[in-house]
Amino acid sequence: MKKIHIVGLGLLGGSFGLGARQKFPEISISGHDSNPQNLKDALTLGIITEAKENPDPDTDLVILATPADTLGELLVKTLDQVGEKTLVFDLGSTKAKLCALMANHPKRKQYLAGHPIAGTEYSGPKAAFAELLDRKVMIICELEKTDLHLKEKAYQLFDALNLKLRFMDPEEHDRHLAFVSHLSHISSFMLGETVLQKMADEKNIFDMAGSGFASTVRLAKSSPAMWAPIFTENKENILSALDGYISNLSNFRDKIAKEDSEGMYQEMAEINKIRDILDLGK
Amino acid sequence: MKKIHIVGLGLLGGSFGLGARQKFPEISISGHDSNPQNLKDALTLGIITEAKENPDPDTDLVILATPADTLGELLVKTLDQVGEKTLVFDLGSTKAKLCALMANHPKRKQYLAGHPIAGTEYSGPKAAFAELLDRKVMIICELEKTDLHLKEKAYQLFDALNLKLRFMDPEEHDRHLAFVSHLSHISSFMLGETVLQKMADEKNIFDMAGSGFASTVRLAKSSPAMWAPIFTENKENILSALDGYISNLSNFRDKIAKEDSEGMYQEMAEINKIRDILDLGK
Repeated sequence: MKKIHIVGLGLLGGSFGLGARQKFPEISISGHDSNPQNLKDALTLGIITEAKENPDPDTDLVILATPADTLGELLVKTLDQVGEKTLVFDLGSTKAKLCALMANHPKRKQYLAGHPIAGTEYSGPKAAFAELLDRKVMIICELEKTDLHLKEKAYQLFDALNLKLRFMDPEEHDRHLAFVSHLSHISSFMLGETVLQKMADEKNIFDMAGSGFASTVRLAKSSPAMWAPIFTENKENILSALDGYISNLSNFRDKIAKEDSEGMYQEMAEINKIRDILDLGK
Repeated sequence: MKKIHIVGLGLLGGSFGLGARQKFPEISISGHDSNPQNLKDALTLGIITEAKENPDPDTDLVILATPADTLGELLVKTLDQVGEKTLVFDLGSTKAKLCALMANHPKRKQYLAGHPIAGTEYSGPKAAFAELLDRKVMIICELEKTDLHLKEKAYQLFDALNLKLRFMDPEEHDRHLAFVSHLSHISSFMLGETVLQKMADEKNIFDMAGSGFASTVRLAKSSPAMWAPIFTENKENILSALDGYISNLSNFRDKIAKEDSEGMYQEMAEINKIRDILDLGK
């Protein structure tokens, strides 16, 4: 492996760049970002060794790390640019639309659909760090549709970065992520919004916020440029998750209004089972 | 100061006990818990030096750390038991009802209304640790209604535990806490419930959960015995917070349904302002 090219030099693309440079110091890593400041920062921070809009035809790996709604067009364009020995993979948070778009593409074998379950509430190249991916799960979809030999190039990088591979179909991926990732971001953004609205009347409302509030509202710091496209791309699954959430909130609201302490107690005790499930995952 | 008595030996009462014993090793600390196992554990863990249902009349400080709905009756009973030189304070998460109940009590001057903004998602004496209170905010309500000399006894303990005192009226306290604490717990419990419900169809749904989900759902591990009473005691403020939250979620849901990416982007960018507010508090 000699050449990697990264498009989108934010938190994820940047962390892949830093990780790859650390593990394979001899490799040349070119990259591009539509935001000139990001591109400049990525060079300064050593995420890439060269700024270049398009990958060379003999690039081994092209990593696409741009917002979810841009990936389809970018992927098709990139596959046109590269030679036969290049593998292109993306890091998008939604997978079904992209895999459907690629279903009959003549270069389908040169594409690998990936999604690393890694991130922070920060964004941009300055938020990137090599260890972000360490021991994180990397979901791969439609594994069997990618060329066996080309896939090895990606695995070499994933292994070096200490990523744990998991395989699932794109529809299952999008259904699960709607509930265990996308919904969390919406709940957190709306929580932040609700308290900010209250701040109009109660200036010092944030003074009393403890660690519990900080924990639940952390994701409200996340990048709108990343998340607005995800909510559109995975619309159906997210609406289903969100409708379930709003319905649970409304039912619990009614229990509070009726002062149904016993009902609230029972419901929360049932939800406490999540302790065992979450601790199992550790 | 020679004698402290603690009623309710869970996370908070237990941490006050451990902290007090560490800072004032010579003091005798008695205590009681209606759960016999908690009482036994508190003795084993060294939270208290003696199990005793009622405080001695010459106790310096009595700390009430039981669920919010039990504090009124307990406070009245305790004030009847103690002598003139005892200060009684509570650690309850709601303050308005308790202060209203005490308004015309003949021993009002011997009561201090407190609420430490400290806790974890765990409960019981085994979850207690002395450092829990270190550099945390301790809210005091109706400061002027407590006897000046008796108050000094509590301040001596608060200073030793490194608590930062803040003063506000009980109504303001309950309004603020509904938004920056109670609502967070409900949002987290309901998020946990929504994903648990989905698990009925999708067994492996938790496998893909990352740090974002863990952060937003952490409070769903909290104690129902503590939280059900808080939701009842602070009903009006919590319903107001919850209605605002559900309304924000429903409006955002409509933006997703309409694929209004620009509208979502603008709304989230506005909410991002919470970054500066939260970082200011550090």
